[in-house]
Amino acid sequence: MEQSLPYDNRIDSESSDQVVNPWEVSAKDGGKIDYDKLIDKFGCKRLDESLIDRVERLTGRQPHKFLRRGVFFAHRDFNEILDAYESGERFYLYTGRGPSSEALHLGHLIPFMFTKYLQEAFKVPLVIQLTDDEKFMWKNLTVEESERLARENARDIIACGFDVTKTFIFSDFDHVGGAFYKNMVKVSKCVTLNKAKGIFGFSGEDHIGKLSFPAVQAAPSFPSSFPHLFPGMDKLRCLIPCAIDQDPYFRMTRDVAPRLGYSKPALIESSFFPALQGENGKMSASDPNSAIYVTDTAKDIKNKINKAKSGGHQFSEDQHNLGADLEVPNSLFCFLPLLCYS
Amino acid sequence: MEQSLPYDNRIDSESSDQVVNPWEVSAKDGGKIDYDKLIDKFGCKRLDESLIDRVERLTGRQPHKFLRRGVFFAHRDFNEILDAYESGERFYLYTGRGPSSEALHLGHLIPFMFTKYLQEAFKVPLVIQLTDDEKFMWKNLTVEESERLARENARDIIACGFDVTKTFIFSDFDHVGGAFYKNMVKVSKCVTLNKAKGIFGFSGEDHIGKLSFPAVQAAPSFPSSFPHLFPGMDKLRCLIPCAIDQDPYFRMTRDVAPRLGYSKPALIESSFFPALQGENGKMSASDPNSAIYVTDTAKDIKNKINKAKSGGHQFSEDQHNLGADLEVPNSLFCFLPLLCYS
Repeated sequence: MEQSLPYDNRIDSESSDQVVNPWEVSAKDGGKIDYDKLIDKFGCKRLDESLIDRVERLTGRQPHKFLRRGVFFAHRDFNEILDAYESGERFYLYTGRGPSSEALHLGHLIPFMFTKYLQEAFKVPLVIQLTDDEKFMWKNLTVEESERLARENARDIIACGFDVTKTFIFSDFDHVGGAFYKNMVKVSKCVTLNKAKGIFGFSGEDHIGKLSFPAVQAAPSFPSSFPHLFPGMDKLRCLIPCAIDQDPYFRMTRDVAPRLGYSKPALIESSFFPALQGENGKMSASDPNSAIYVTDTAKDIKNKINKAKSGGHQFSEDQHNLGADLEVPNSLFCFLPLLCYS
Repeated sequence: MEQSLPYDNRIDSESSDQVVNPWEVSAKDGGKIDYDKLIDKFGCKRLDESLIDRVERLTGRQPHKFLRRGVFFAHRDFNEILDAYESGERFYLYTGRGPSSEALHLGHLIPFMFTKYLQEAFKVPLVIQLTDDEKFMWKNLTVEESERLARENARDIIACGFDVTKTFIFSDFDHVGGAFYKNMVKVSKCVTLNKAKGIFGFSGEDHIGKLSFPAVQAAPSFPSSFPHLFPGMDKLRCLIPCAIDQDPYFRMTRDVAPRLGYSKPALIESSFFPALQGENGKMSASDPNSAIYVTDTAKDIKNKINKAKSGGHQFSEDQHNLGADLEVPNSLFCFLPLLCYS
């Protein structure tokens, strides 16, 4: 049994240990993110070999390299999703993106590439939320600029090649309302201010928009938020592929779900794509030097890689010839080839 | 110049003085609401004779009895609305109702009767917000029951006789979305948690839905929330007729408006319709014994009036013959005749 909302993000900030929340990912003093510690603190489970074997058996195909190489390494109730699938039930996938940059970078591609695989392998519908409202509230952007970035990002997401007959991409500014808004309000009614502060680390100087937002990210976890997609299918289970920094939103959502008579969404969670400067942070759209964008030219990418660091090494021509240390888990030079070869 | 958000509701609770906020109206130890004190604390202005004379001059008709008898007694920038009207500009009216009971009671009728008069006298459009989301969050109601009560209440409101060509009645569960949601988010971004606590007295044990709601009540103050009604009319001014307990919402809204490039809504505010038990509280839908509903039978009403108290007096057959003390301002027996005679 998982504990209900066991983890308080504020503890991280105070102890100056690693900080992992939806807005900040950083390890202590240039060290690496300790994922075992994160699993313990968040209260999720490690994805073990037996689950990956089961995916292979159920889908009749080799599991995705992100599973085989441990990029997706943690989960909540993924086994229950597989149980349901095995007994003939369907489920749906939910993932998303906060449109804070003109283009996606390699780190953003990880959940989308993996979600495309899950959609193909399990033949299930998918909803993709573009949180333009979140980015308007957290960043110095106008509503119009947030909407424009959402549209730009949607093009990159579409290019990943999802099944157009089974995929619904929406922006919050465009879609919030009706059944979706009702679920937002239902979720909000179940979370006290103290609890929200504990999960997300909000302070008195944060604006109330930030306090409203977790309910917006929670709503797509429930099929009743999409009556046009899932009419009369309120029991359909939801599986959320995402990076593990999004876990706080869904810990909250899972805590609330039974009180609303809804199923808890299941999660399958990835580690972070390392920043070009090293593995103590994630590739971030807020820091252009940390990231390779899908719109970068071949020359840009070559320059960025040559300046990049991984496992304590600078990637230079010499190291290129000698080979980078691919055995350092979660290192940049371990991740990069995964995007190129299957 | 008015001060920015000068009033902290929590002070009231702590000093056990009169409490006036959107959820509670009560005077100290069975005394009466001190409206002069309220005007001072809230920072609004008294509606004086010269403004009422000006209304008569501008509309070419006798001002409504609620103006002449001081039922609407306070305002914010009502003079500016009259300036604009005099110079040929239009404005729109915004009022609302939280659907917490099957039927409206006499207290609810006050703003609607007065709003109908304003609409007729100034020939202006009107939006009426039914806050079914608020009542779901504050009361022990399902979403469906809140929506049903909103629909029931809409029938009573329609019966007041608004101009059907100039009136838009909506429920939040039905209408939130699009431009309206964008304004909610814009407002939320401008109000810190500390400020919301100061204005509304929220505590850590309150749920985050309560913290989200003030932005929902703020949004109709801005014409851009209704692009289908006011296309390209983002500068249209808004006048809000309401009971003075709603003032905290609109103090917050007025504080935020300039930062969004919007006009501050003007207000015209009424005293409370006294409870049948006496003038230390308001007629409340949450306490059926305090109220006369529009659906009560003649016999119900007679029974309730005979048990009612006003100005320290019980209304009995004797007092009926001798006459009640109509000179006690804001007393029940001062209010009741205002609903019957013009």
